Amino acid sequence: MSFDNNIPTKFPKLEPRGPAGELLLASERAKASFDVKELSKFMYGEQWLAKMDKVLNVISNEPAFDKTGRYYESRQERVANGFKKDKRLIELVKEQNWDETETNIATFLYDQSTPFSLHYNMFIPTLRSQTTDEQKKLFLEPALKHQIIGCYAQTELGHGSNVQGLETTATYIPETNEFELHSPTLTASKWWIGGLGKVANHAIVMARLITNGKDLGPHPFCVQIRSLKDHRPLEGVTVGDIGPKFGFNSVDNGFIMFDHYRIPHVAFLAKYSQVKPGTGEYSKPPNAKLSYGTMVYVRANIVMGVRYALAKATTIAVRYSAVRQQFVDSANPKKWDNKVVETPVLDYTMQQYRLLPTVAAAYACFFTGTEMIRLYNLNQVEMQKGNFGLLADLHASSSGLKSLTTTMAAEAIEDCRRACGGHGYSLFSGLGQFYQDYLPNVTWEGDNYILTQQTARYLLKTYRNVVAGKAVPSEYNQTVNYLTQYLQNTKAKCPVTVPTDFNNPEVILAAFGFRAAYGIAKAAEQIDNQGRSWNSMLVEINRISRAHCQFLLVRTFIIALQNANLDKATTAVLRNLATLFALHTMEKELSDFLLSGYLNGDQTSMLKEQVIVLLEQVRPQAVPLVDAFALPDYYLHSALGRSDGNVYKAMTEMAEREPLNHTQVVSSYEECIKPFVHAGQTTDRWNEDGTLSAKL
Amino acid sequence: MSFDNNIPTKFPKLEPRGPAGELLLASERAKASFDVKELSKFMYGEQWLAKMDKVLNVISNEPAFDKTGRYYESRQERVANGFKKDKRLIELVKEQNWDETETNIATFLYDQSTPFSLHYNMFIPTLRSQTTDEQKKLFLEPALKHQIIGCYAQTELGHGSNVQGLETTATYIPETNEFELHSPTLTASKWWIGGLGKVANHAIVMARLITNGKDLGPHPFCVQIRSLKDHRPLEGVTVGDIGPKFGFNSVDNGFIMFDHYRIPHVAFLAKYSQVKPGTGEYSKPPNAKLSYGTMVYVRANIVMGVRYALAKATTIAVRYSAVRQQFVDSANPKKWDNKVVETPVLDYTMQQYRLLPTVAAAYACFFTGTEMIRLYNLNQVEMQKGNFGLLADLHASSSGLKSLTTTMAAEAIEDCRRACGGHGYSLFSGLGQFYQDYLPNVTWEGDNYILTQQTARYLLKTYRNVVAGKAVPSEYNQTVNYLTQYLQNTKAKCPVTVPTDFNNPEVILAAFGFRAAYGIAKAAEQIDNQGRSWNSMLVEINRISRAHCQFLLVRTFIIALQNANLDKATTAVLRNLATLFALHTMEKELSDFLLSGYLNGDQTSMLKEQVIVLLEQVRPQAVPLVDAFALPDYYLHSALGRSDGNVYKAMTEMAEREPLNHTQVVSSYEECIKPFVHAGQTTDRWNEDGTLSAKL
Repeated sequence: MSFDNNIPTKFPKLEPRGPAGELLLASERAKASFDVKELSKFMYGEQWLAKMDKVLNVISNEPAFDKTGRYYESRQERVANGFKKDKRLIELVKEQNWDETETNIATFLYDQSTPFSLHYNMFIPTLRSQTTDEQKKLFLEPALKHQIIGCYAQTELGHGSNVQGLETTATYIPETNEFELHSPTLTASKWWIGGLGKVANHAIVMARLITNGKDLGPHPFCVQIRSLKDHRPLEGVTVGDIGPKFGFNSVDNGFIMFDHYRIPHVAFLAKYSQVKPGTGEYSKPPNAKLSYGTMVYVRANIVMGVRYALAKATTIAVRYSAVRQQFVDSANPKKWDNKVVETPVLDYTMQQYRLLPTVAAAYACFFTGTEMIRLYNLNQVEMQKGNFGLLADLHASSSGLKSLTTTMAAEAIEDCRRACGGHGYSLFSGLGQFYQDYLPNVTWEGDNYILTQQTARYLLKTYRNVVAGKAVPSEYNQTVNYLTQYLQNTKAKCPVTVPTDFNNPEVILAAFGFRAAYGIAKAAEQIDNQGRSWNSMLVEINRISRAHCQFLLVRTFIIALQNANLDKATTAVLRNLATLFALHTMEKELSDFLLSGYLNGDQTSMLKEQVIVLLEQVRPQAVPLVDAFALPDYYLHSALGRSDGNVYKAMTEMAEREPLNHTQVVSSYEECIKPFVHAGQTTDRWNEDGTLSAKL
Repeated sequence: MSFDNNIPTKFPKLEPRGPAGELLLASERAKASFDVKELSKFMYGEQWLAKMDKVLNVISNEPAFDKTGRYYESRQERVANGFKKDKRLIELVKEQNWDETETNIATFLYDQSTPFSLHYNMFIPTLRSQTTDEQKKLFLEPALKHQIIGCYAQTELGHGSNVQGLETTATYIPETNEFELHSPTLTASKWWIGGLGKVANHAIVMARLITNGKDLGPHPFCVQIRSLKDHRPLEGVTVGDIGPKFGFNSVDNGFIMFDHYRIPHVAFLAKYSQVKPGTGEYSKPPNAKLSYGTMVYVRANIVMGVRYALAKATTIAVRYSAVRQQFVDSANPKKWDNKVVETPVLDYTMQQYRLLPTVAAAYACFFTGTEMIRLYNLNQVEMQKGNFGLLADLHASSSGLKSLTTTMAAEAIEDCRRACGGHGYSLFSGLGQFYQDYLPNVTWEGDNYILTQQTARYLLKTYRNVVAGKAVPSEYNQTVNYLTQYLQNTKAKCPVTVPTDFNNPEVILAAFGFRAAYGIAKAAEQIDNQGRSWNSMLVEINRISRAHCQFLLVRTFIIALQNANLDKATTAVLRNLATLFALHTMEKELSDFLLSGYLNGDQTSMLKEQVIVLLEQVRPQAVPLVDAFALPDYYLHSALGRSDGNVYKAMTEMAEREPLNHTQVVSSYEECIKPFVHAGQTTDRWNEDGTLSAKL
């Protein structure tokens, strides 16, 4: 019997069991106690939202921006499609006359890094900030026109966090006025460099500058690595892709090794330090503090990025939890059209506990990111005036906040994925690949564990200063403030007597301040008086950085709401969220609050009770609150998170696109199934249609 | 200029910067204070280890079992290679005359589920346990010969955990003595069914049995779905693959829908309940309690599986942490050949804190899994005698332990991956795909959140019984024991006065017992006396299940060591591990211990101190302890976890195999790079070799 194998599998035209997702989401939206659109405008600005609509309209009709194939692609297809998107984006910017915001929106909505990403994110910014005018002409101008395409090569196979341990050398050769780049060992190979594997023809290479026999440590060089004629690697260079990763597979992260590779004197990026031609004499960079300002800016943007990550994850998980019904809650049965139906999982306290504090955290990160950018700008102005007084606190806090919030985001994405039950495990949820692609954030721009050491060093130093009377409270330094308050009464107790007392912002801030200060004081005591080594204290050091940054997140959220230009209804909802965020964090970190004796057992029971009360209060606003993030379906690309709630239809449509379903019989059949099934079977046991006789 | 593009990229022959990984691991192994081989034998048995060697020897030379391509495969390649392995395994079992243990070892070492997996794991076991003799002949015998290949279809698109909510119906048709299978809605589609997508020609289908107009709820049917002649789906069946998943992509998880599909009467699996031919009269299954025994067995094996998961993850992370050097620890610089070198990251307390408790957890799960199997056997014997007295405690504990330990494992794999720094993100670490593939364990065989409700229900009931004097302490019921002890003194305090007091097993067990009992008593109070609803208590319910199961893990570990036939040196090391596991768990769950007033602030400081002391003590044994897991390199398939420590060479060799490196110039070059690079460039700015003039 022969038949056509090339009939794609199609689902029958049936509806899911009711009530349908559309109706369930509509009923959720009807509960909104505030104006969702106004809250979106408050966060993004009306102009930005209009631009997003405009850009979305363009790219949703562009084949190079099509996402329908995203979850089925092999690594090679991913890279190839990334290239196509990169190329088309360059054309679209011209065709549509997009400004920088619009271009960034297009990249944001596409939501996947591509081979050119590092050219924009690292190569061009480095050329802007670290080059002389001559170098700008030579490198930056062609880079802006994509005549040269670059990447940023710092990390090596053997060294990441420890930049001072990098092995690649750049030795100045006075005779020819060149540098000789060299990789002395296998571990000196540059590794993990985005864009280097296949696309870049230039790289900023961080190499140990050696001149007149002196090793001056890592410095940046702009190095051509591939031919501009035919893209072939130049002689003396071994370059390629580092292979598949947990995520980020649309980017060609690469390696490069140099074999006595000569580059001209002008390759040394000379804005801050110089090597004199001929003599090789080295001149040092000025005060490094200025560059700390830039780090604050980068980290503020990472925190704003955390907001998007949390917003995306919760939009998907909250909407799906409102649609997904499981079990009848016999104590409180859900009715629909007067019939008892299964309960949407979002009505179960455990599900609320898993999701709603994360919705709150997304808002917390929005306010904190905004505040960090404000402080960054303030600090830039002050540094111009020669006042470096804000920098240390801002830099330390930004290190710890980057660490804390990106770790929170990675965990939240995975928690949201699991909270979607079995279907969270399907790539169609949109959360699996998202988790994988998000993860580098916990490592890059400072490893999250290492960063907390920087924060803790500052906190300990500040504590010693406050104790010594060398630091006074100031509106710009909350660290000094809460430490001072702590030292005024190290035996303070939480004043809560009824659960609702925990709604009081002052109660919350005092508790978080006391807890942070207590941890710092304890650690200082152990290091300064008990002789504990830094290494033996690393676990506590991590804790005090976290405590400090949780204080900042909670405080910024609360204070921002007191000052924000928002209507009453919206403010009321966000206040509940801020309180939920604070109290849930307190419950998660409960031992810290108990240990200091600040909170007692009865208060803890009240705290837990109040968290459940807040979950109940926030629950009806859950869908409106994620709707306010205004993330379009194109961006989410999730069967579970669709704004129309048509979850099951979407799952089946995406399954129909699975390449294995394009034929009825799998190609391995002849080789790997048929020999066993046909062995020993006598055909008279079969009916004409291949069923066993009597269908057995 | 033309050149050959097909030259694969090769790394230069260079060594990594020393000291080499081989030497570092050798120095770690020299520190072993116990006999590593003996510990392996204790855990696996000499015979099993010999069988593993034998099987490993065979499959490491079998192309169908080759893993070198694993990290580069597309979904389709994965499925196709899975089929090849399945076919070859069937042949090898015959050729090599492997027994069941050896066959299982081959599958274990290959370490990736494949299309046939569910045939072995679910289809055959179900046929064994739920069929009549006639059905065994019809289904089981051909299944054992692979003449029919099956799967197990329970979960639906709309219902997973709530089995009673399944929608697929099987209506008995007395006229023809058939059942009519039907999917009334889209959400009735079976979904997530391993092996259904492409390979199975039969399925156990769980469908609501309807006879004489009565809906009797879900029952199992053995249903032919594809032709035995040509593997084509039979008429009335829509079947296919559900598409890509977060992991598990070598398996063809599938969907199926039935359109008034007729199956013969014999398809109804009739060992426990029957439908009378002709009349359709239904007879109920006997006591369902017997099947609870099977669940205990399955869950005991999942806990043993957790041991492997933790062992694999820690083997990789611990070995790599001994090889990877980062920063000079100035307070305690590491010397090698009298030169200061960077410190292996395993010497940093934070890294020890991240990894060593997980090594301990792997051993804890080994002892607990072993104990669960012993209790399962004991219970089977007792049930045969009509004694069901052990079952409730065993079943409740096994539910909670499955939930707790698989969640622990999923977290530990990811923690270990992150503890490998940047390289943990490369698939070559072996941990990324492992995490993805492991994750279904938190959902299948009972969703981990739902399961804790079962455990908690039992704990609350037992508490009420103990209070009412209806339950007496017994060597087989630790729950009753610790609850009784708690009720004798609900104000007990931890007796610790110096940090080393925490090493005392009795101190540890009393603390864990008190904490579990306190939580249960509190929850009972809230539900029984304060009228809190079950739903509002779900967060606490989860906590009491966890507290109970942590008590069991800690207790079993400690007690097993007191009884195990192990030499003194090994016992000493394992005792340290058991104490570390207990105290680290206590620190992680600190708020529970503080809240009850059992532990005070000073004791907490001592606890934390003692954890650091134990990390120091375990640290030298870390590599020997993971070596004792005896996991071969073939199984680990990890560049970072290799037993020879040659990490960096392995990373570069695996990168050389990346398909993108098989050509020098990426295929997208002509379309997506060249147009930009060549635009506006005047060729006289280029040198012959494609460098810009003056190399710029």
